[in-house]
Amino acid sequence: MIQAIKIHNDDNVAVAVGSQGLRAGEILESEGLKLIDDVPQGHKIALTDIPSGAPVIRYGVTIARAKDLIPAGSWVKEALVEIPPSPALDELVYKQPQEKKMEPLEGYTFMGFRNPDRSVGTRNILGISTTVQCVSGVVNHVVKVLKEKHLSSYPHVDDVVALNHSYGCGVAYNADDAFIPIRSVKNLTLNPNLGGEVMMVGLGCEKLEMKHLEAFLQTVDALPQERVSSLILQNEELKGFQSMVDALVRQGIEHLERLNKRRREECPLSDLVIGVQCGGSDAFSGLTANPSIGYAVDLLVRAGGTALFSEVTEVRDAAPVLASRCADKETFETLKKELDWYDSYLKRGGADRSANTTPGNKQGGLVNIVEKAMGSVVKSGSMNISGVLGPGERVSGKGLIFAATPASDFVCGTCQLASGISLQIFSTGRGTPYNLPIAPVVKLSSRRDLSQRWYDLVDLDTGDIAWGEAGIEETGWKLFHLIIEVASGRKPAAEALGLYNDLVIFNPAPIT
Amino acid sequence: MIQAIKIHNDDNVAVAVGSQGLRAGEILESEGLKLIDDVPQGHKIALTDIPSGAPVIRYGVTIARAKDLIPAGSWVKEALVEIPPSPALDELVYKQPQEKKMEPLEGYTFMGFRNPDRSVGTRNILGISTTVQCVSGVVNHVVKVLKEKHLSSYPHVDDVVALNHSYGCGVAYNADDAFIPIRSVKNLTLNPNLGGEVMMVGLGCEKLEMKHLEAFLQTVDALPQERVSSLILQNEELKGFQSMVDALVRQGIEHLERLNKRRREECPLSDLVIGVQCGGSDAFSGLTANPSIGYAVDLLVRAGGTALFSEVTEVRDAAPVLASRCADKETFETLKKELDWYDSYLKRGGADRSANTTPGNKQGGLVNIVEKAMGSVVKSGSMNISGVLGPGERVSGKGLIFAATPASDFVCGTCQLASGISLQIFSTGRGTPYNLPIAPVVKLSSRRDLSQRWYDLVDLDTGDIAWGEAGIEETGWKLFHLIIEVASGRKPAAEALGLYNDLVIFNPAPIT
Repeated sequence: MIQAIKIHNDDNVAVAVGSQGLRAGEILESEGLKLIDDVPQGHKIALTDIPSGAPVIRYGVTIARAKDLIPAGSWVKEALVEIPPSPALDELVYKQPQEKKMEPLEGYTFMGFRNPDRSVGTRNILGISTTVQCVSGVVNHVVKVLKEKHLSSYPHVDDVVALNHSYGCGVAYNADDAFIPIRSVKNLTLNPNLGGEVMMVGLGCEKLEMKHLEAFLQTVDALPQERVSSLILQNEELKGFQSMVDALVRQGIEHLERLNKRRREECPLSDLVIGVQCGGSDAFSGLTANPSIGYAVDLLVRAGGTALFSEVTEVRDAAPVLASRCADKETFETLKKELDWYDSYLKRGGADRSANTTPGNKQGGLVNIVEKAMGSVVKSGSMNISGVLGPGERVSGKGLIFAATPASDFVCGTCQLASGISLQIFSTGRGTPYNLPIAPVVKLSSRRDLSQRWYDLVDLDTGDIAWGEAGIEETGWKLFHLIIEVASGRKPAAEALGLYNDLVIFNPAPIT
Repeated sequence: MIQAIKIHNDDNVAVAVGSQGLRAGEILESEGLKLIDDVPQGHKIALTDIPSGAPVIRYGVTIARAKDLIPAGSWVKEALVEIPPSPALDELVYKQPQEKKMEPLEGYTFMGFRNPDRSVGTRNILGISTTVQCVSGVVNHVVKVLKEKHLSSYPHVDDVVALNHSYGCGVAYNADDAFIPIRSVKNLTLNPNLGGEVMMVGLGCEKLEMKHLEAFLQTVDALPQERVSSLILQNEELKGFQSMVDALVRQGIEHLERLNKRRREECPLSDLVIGVQCGGSDAFSGLTANPSIGYAVDLLVRAGGTALFSEVTEVRDAAPVLASRCADKETFETLKKELDWYDSYLKRGGADRSANTTPGNKQGGLVNIVEKAMGSVVKSGSMNISGVLGPGERVSGKGLIFAATPASDFVCGTCQLASGISLQIFSTGRGTPYNLPIAPVVKLSSRRDLSQRWYDLVDLDTGDIAWGEAGIEETGWKLFHLIIEVASGRKPAAEALGLYNDLVIFNPAPIT
């Protein structure tokens, strides 16, 4: 039985596995080392004496430094170590990365919904976009009517969803950073799972005006304008609540009619855009689930597809690693710009990168954000980074893309939806029932006991990797095939249960 | 027929009334003045020549200055005027205000739900509090089960509501301003409409830990701890989604059993805590609806009750007026502190007070934030201010309280709920279907045509005041009686229609 896992040859720590962790006095067979402390599952054991000030090395990088001598066999816990300084962005220098020699993967396809703009959805959903939260009471009512009374007449439509959010009014609309939420609201209307149908509801007096959204949509290539509808509740023709509902139900039915004519068709994987994310991470996330995701991401990119990875505060400490993988100078400069923007954003609010790690992360064995970052960034696989997007910016290129978003699960998810993902892969160590409203989320557990406990919420367990009972390659392929199935219509656990979380638009500008 | 309304003797502008506004060439009878321009309804007419640089006076105060000569009879529109500087907070000097000599109003009562802590609710609602958005999919499902399968067995319970929000994780939990959202989440559990029953759901790995909420609740006077329940979804005893739902439904039923035993009883008005707010304002708001609210607020305060007014960016330009009404030095200092905090908050985000006014405000005739502020602050009536609360801070004193919150409708509403209101009065000129999830909202229209158009969304029209067909005193009394009826159980329009907007917690700290 495997007791602990060492990831990289240079590491001087290993991570305890087994649901009970390890006990003081126990011998770590692989190292012939006697443990001094009890070490909980997911936490680290010092494999050698680590002198005061010396680096604690995991993933082959310095994740921390010892405050005092940490004797071999100790539990390397947060209190014993100091966090190293954050890599300075202005010291990063661009160097053309080596061309990746992985062979293209050919012949893989999925059954998707082709949109007028050539993008492909994995679902066929009527999304009702909103300019402002004020309208959500009415829109929620309309969604209820459409679902209860009409949706069954449109069997090829998967769902009707209100794209509610708290942006749109009572905000500093002209502040420097307001372009981020505004861009997000606009781009959300174009998510490939909404079938190129745009149904918008506004109030009429809000700051995010309907005419801004309409003007934006007119600039979008290949969006048939007859598929765009909008209604402003303050319109003088509307006489009270029931007339608002009636008008919106009528508009909704027109969209449903068109959506219902669509059918899945065979599409090359190069048409698939997925996002990857982790949440409720533990020390296993970087050992089992995230490397499996990274492997599947490599496969998807080799097949010509697109994968977005995100979460600035979880990759910030891996900036040199990311910089060395940028495919060109422009991508490198955009990466630096986005990371720098986030540094300033946190500083302005009196916070720094240490604000990211949660109590759950720490209980799970992650001593600090550096360790978390190194485990997080392996989700991105090994390919070169072909592009960098700002938060909520729409994807245009293919391949591996860094979408610079907050790490907060629902905020990252919303940004990725705005960027255009049609499916998300989500790894978790502690467990979360999180789901996105307009894209299926495939949930991976990093530990076997989580997948056993949450048997109806986890789609794929990767915990076997920690016991040596499965390989990353094998699990990565399994995930790759699961992605194709879910993209083609198979419902992952959370979608089958009908779980939804609301959108949360990232608004770094003030509320007024 | 009244053509235009001048509010204060010193004013050099009047506001055009009548749904068509006024036409160039028309004679303004009251002034014997011929109009030079068409003036839309709600917009201002210059009653005298206003020389370049001279003040434009409304409500007896300078709301703007003329850029060039504005001839008598002109439409005083935004482009013709400049905004005066914001009143400097450090120049405000405390002076004890005159004691208000209004007679106490005795003998008014309402039928409310008395809570263990002596507060009184206007509704009897099971609220399910959440530490983090991750759990909302599960909680929404639980609410559905409780409402569809169980609520009918508890006829004395009004509703089951998920207190979802986007705070709790992925946030800078230790940032300077993080105390605001944390305090708000805590205080929301204590809203008087939740009957002293606290049901909380957490995930387990989030930053806002359940133990923080539990520790807080233990410090709350007169909260019976056996009425507090909590469940953490990552608990090892829970085996998957269905077991989470089952456990929460069981807990919910225990709360419903106790809530169902409660009955309305006669309570003095001194037990009522209301909030007042305006949204989608026009130039009539400050003329009809808001003065009526101010009158009713005076009545409520005279009856010993409590009224919270809010919206920092809408009262900031009336700071000297508010300062002169502070009942004591401590209130004055807290007022200055809260306004100053907001100035810094806006500045840090690259915004200022001008960020408040919306396109709808301007179409409605409000040239800038000064004019909007003067019209907004009349909601507070004329009594001295007995206390000032920070955003989401719980009310303790009685009387007229300034609760320093953002003006954004749903953010202000959420802060006021956290402060402890059990009912809200909301005035609107442009119209909004906004509603709060756990307190009834009484909607006032500022214009008659809005109340006619939105006949099933407006509870009380105040537009007749603009035609001289109703007085502020008469309308204020009408509203006062309506407040008592709604506090006693009568459903206002939005509640009867089942409209809800989600809570939006004010989080001025960064997302991570």
